[in-house]
Amino acid sequence: MSKELTTRAADYSQWYNDLVIKGGLADYSAVRGCMVIKPYGYALWENMRDQLDKMFKDTGHVNAYFPLFIPKSLFEAEEKNAEGFAKECAIVTHYRLKTDPNNKGKLIVDPEAKLEEELIVRPTSEAIIWNTYKGWIQSYRDLPLLINQWANVVRWEMRTRLFLRTAEFLWQEGHTAHATKQEAIAETEQMLNVYADFVEEYMAVPVIKGIKTANERFAGAEDTYCIEALMQDGKALQAGTSHFLGQNFAKAFDVQFMNKENKLEYVWATSWGVSTRLIGALIMAHSDDQGLIMPPKIAPLQVVIVPIYKGEESKPVIDAKVEILVKEFKALGIRVKYDNSDNARPGWKFAEYELKGVPVRIALGMRDLENNVVELARRDTKEKQSVSVDGLPETVKKLLEEIQRNIYNKALAFRNENIREANSWDEFVKLLDEKGGFISAHWDGTGETEDKIKDQTKATIRCIPMNNKMEEGKCILTGMPSGQRVLFARAY
Amino acid sequence: MSKELTTRAADYSQWYNDLVIKGGLADYSAVRGCMVIKPYGYALWENMRDQLDKMFKDTGHVNAYFPLFIPKSLFEAEEKNAEGFAKECAIVTHYRLKTDPNNKGKLIVDPEAKLEEELIVRPTSEAIIWNTYKGWIQSYRDLPLLINQWANVVRWEMRTRLFLRTAEFLWQEGHTAHATKQEAIAETEQMLNVYADFVEEYMAVPVIKGIKTANERFAGAEDTYCIEALMQDGKALQAGTSHFLGQNFAKAFDVQFMNKENKLEYVWATSWGVSTRLIGALIMAHSDDQGLIMPPKIAPLQVVIVPIYKGEESKPVIDAKVEILVKEFKALGIRVKYDNSDNARPGWKFAEYELKGVPVRIALGMRDLENNVVELARRDTKEKQSVSVDGLPETVKKLLEEIQRNIYNKALAFRNENIREANSWDEFVKLLDEKGGFISAHWDGTGETEDKIKDQTKATIRCIPMNNKMEEGKCILTGMPSGQRVLFARAY
Repeated sequence: MSKELTTRAADYSQWYNDLVIKGGLADYSAVRGCMVIKPYGYALWENMRDQLDKMFKDTGHVNAYFPLFIPKSLFEAEEKNAEGFAKECAIVTHYRLKTDPNNKGKLIVDPEAKLEEELIVRPTSEAIIWNTYKGWIQSYRDLPLLINQWANVVRWEMRTRLFLRTAEFLWQEGHTAHATKQEAIAETEQMLNVYADFVEEYMAVPVIKGIKTANERFAGAEDTYCIEALMQDGKALQAGTSHFLGQNFAKAFDVQFMNKENKLEYVWATSWGVSTRLIGALIMAHSDDQGLIMPPKIAPLQVVIVPIYKGEESKPVIDAKVEILVKEFKALGIRVKYDNSDNARPGWKFAEYELKGVPVRIALGMRDLENNVVELARRDTKEKQSVSVDGLPETVKKLLEEIQRNIYNKALAFRNENIREANSWDEFVKLLDEKGGFISAHWDGTGETEDKIKDQTKATIRCIPMNNKMEEGKCILTGMPSGQRVLFARAY
Repeated sequence: MSKELTTRAADYSQWYNDLVIKGGLADYSAVRGCMVIKPYGYALWENMRDQLDKMFKDTGHVNAYFPLFIPKSLFEAEEKNAEGFAKECAIVTHYRLKTDPNNKGKLIVDPEAKLEEELIVRPTSEAIIWNTYKGWIQSYRDLPLLINQWANVVRWEMRTRLFLRTAEFLWQEGHTAHATKQEAIAETEQMLNVYADFVEEYMAVPVIKGIKTANERFAGAEDTYCIEALMQDGKALQAGTSHFLGQNFAKAFDVQFMNKENKLEYVWATSWGVSTRLIGALIMAHSDDQGLIMPPKIAPLQVVIVPIYKGEESKPVIDAKVEILVKEFKALGIRVKYDNSDNARPGWKFAEYELKGVPVRIALGMRDLENNVVELARRDTKEKQSVSVDGLPETVKKLLEEIQRNIYNKALAFRNENIREANSWDEFVKLLDEKGGFISAHWDGTGETEDKIKDQTKATIRCIPMNNKMEEGKCILTGMPSGQRVLFARAY
């Protein structure tokens, strides 16, 4: 093996870090809690972004860009939102450095360059955007406003994990404005569905759609819809959220519009976002002890071809054959790389591309060429087969589709096996400790009980599933009556 | 007219602002010096970005993402670079807000949450990137490293202009690492050529390639290559820069590699960038008193179709016909919009799309349909013609190419007319005041003289053109000997 990896069984958390770093997705940086997204990880993010962007545009949204900074007075205007983010804000207070008179070649903050009003580095952009919308919305004719932004945001987290929780991260945030409540709710639901479709179809990660409890709601929202995924260690991960914001931001920023009856009304709002955190979900849903497993649809590289040279004279023969193959693959839209670099042996390359999760590996030597075959290895099942060179691009294209399906089905089976019902407190705790996964249980509907359960078990209510079955029962903690089960889990 | 525009003759600067704001490209924000890039402006930026990104990838570069923040100790490591940007840095000093005990509902910076080391919001990323490269580069096998980043940066400018000079702006910054000086210089030149090709071919803005004088060099560079464009008011605009950084950053961050002879050497570096400032260049190079003029290749919208309804019964007939046309346009890859909204009359729409610079407008009513023709209006020349519906998509496709060429040729003719030689100080000052444009003149090669000329005339040396003709002469200010002419101009 080129690089030693920790196994999941030995140390799940270290296994994850190993995959991120040794797999070339990201690196730690010199800035506390901030990561460097390396080229391979960024290429993955580009594929995710491009697909999401297409889905946003197909549903009528356009992109725009709003300032990185939010003046404190705007930031605090929507009180709940401000309160929710106040404790994790990076704050710009000065706008100039000067040379340190006591230390040659060093710089100090110039105390004379203090800002009159501090600027918050955006942890989310509702405040600056709704302050801007105020100038853009006068009449019902200006609505709906369907805007998305791709941006970096900063949340000063104390405990960070690569991709999963970083002080700075990349995301998209949609911010829409509507004339009616129904329309805003429909938008919130539509975007939740877009997220679910994207994560399931492209990332091959099955999700549960649901609604957050009041405790877990986005600060400033009336309702938070979410998609929840399950990782291989039995912990849940919130993969995306879509918020119905009611008229909270419209009221905080006084955004009113003249309706068709010539009356002033406050505008209805939604916001929704997914981030580079999704990459963490992707890694933990699919990968194994040999490395990453990339879903073909968004894999930076779908196919790698490795030559097995025997003697100098085989090189030009194999290279010439592969050159033709590469062209054929590309013509089918397959992202392919021919690695004929001479600085590593084939075995090392095999391990490296396995670590990087490239879905299909093709190896070929002189004898293969003579027999008109290549060795085809799939990353997900590690099966190898000898297949004909004739029609190889089509064979591979079908195989990529098969791998995408297989990865999804595997994750789906695992997820479904790991949703269990608990009907008593003891059963709940036992399941949580011994099995993990989602636990479907009754809850009395109060934030107090929810907090107690969290304090005692570290499990939170991940969501009240959409179209949940109504069922009478008793709260696992308090025994109070409950009208439906909710999904608990320990979560990232 | 839907919106009153200032004319260029009346107030050039106000004309520019009118186009940006009324044309829907950008808006002022609540944050000093920061703008909001509106959907129409962002769509333009997306087209520019996508094309540039393709050109970067075609030349072997990959994207990555580095932190927004730079710890002060890293920022100051390369002294010249630090000194160059120290006076315009936004500085994060705290990481938490708390509720104001004296003012309910308000927040204050928590004095207990002061960072041990201040963080600089990146004005450019050499420092954080070279500090990272140190961990990535050990041997010549790790080189070259060809990385680009699309990001936001912040430079605390005192006088800002929408797109041209904003405190926060969007850009790309390439940062490459090489084993040899020659290779780094070749990269610097290659990227300058990529920029020139992009700006000329896609933005239809002719540029002069050249090298900056020492005074105008990027802080920390050995050489700064640039492309310079000419605006309609006779002022120059630096449209892109590509820097040969020598070993300055490698030395500052101790980035050495083992060469093929097993000896440690410092790595050679380049960096290169273009920004949303290019949009300012685009506006000022092409637009007229009726509004923006978008080059078809990057226009967010290439064709708009406006129906002229006469009576209710004409609506379904025209709509049905246009629906077919729209499909045909899209099949040819043409970005088309059918504006049959009923909230404005055709005349208002005509003015609106003229203001937005949509290259081609098609209008059609019932009589046109009966005659199997439409009215085709081109934005650049304002010519209208009646053309057959048969083969319309192909007609329009050719027209778009013709418009792209025409816009470029017009800007090129203007630029060429506005390069003049001055052979004495009086002639230089007179040309500068009466004609503007580029002035080709002799200079004695000293920064001192350059500063004096700038102080007295506000003209700077824009560049020493690439492949400049050698010619003996005397400096226009000092009369000292000079071996070649350089290009002066007042500039944005």
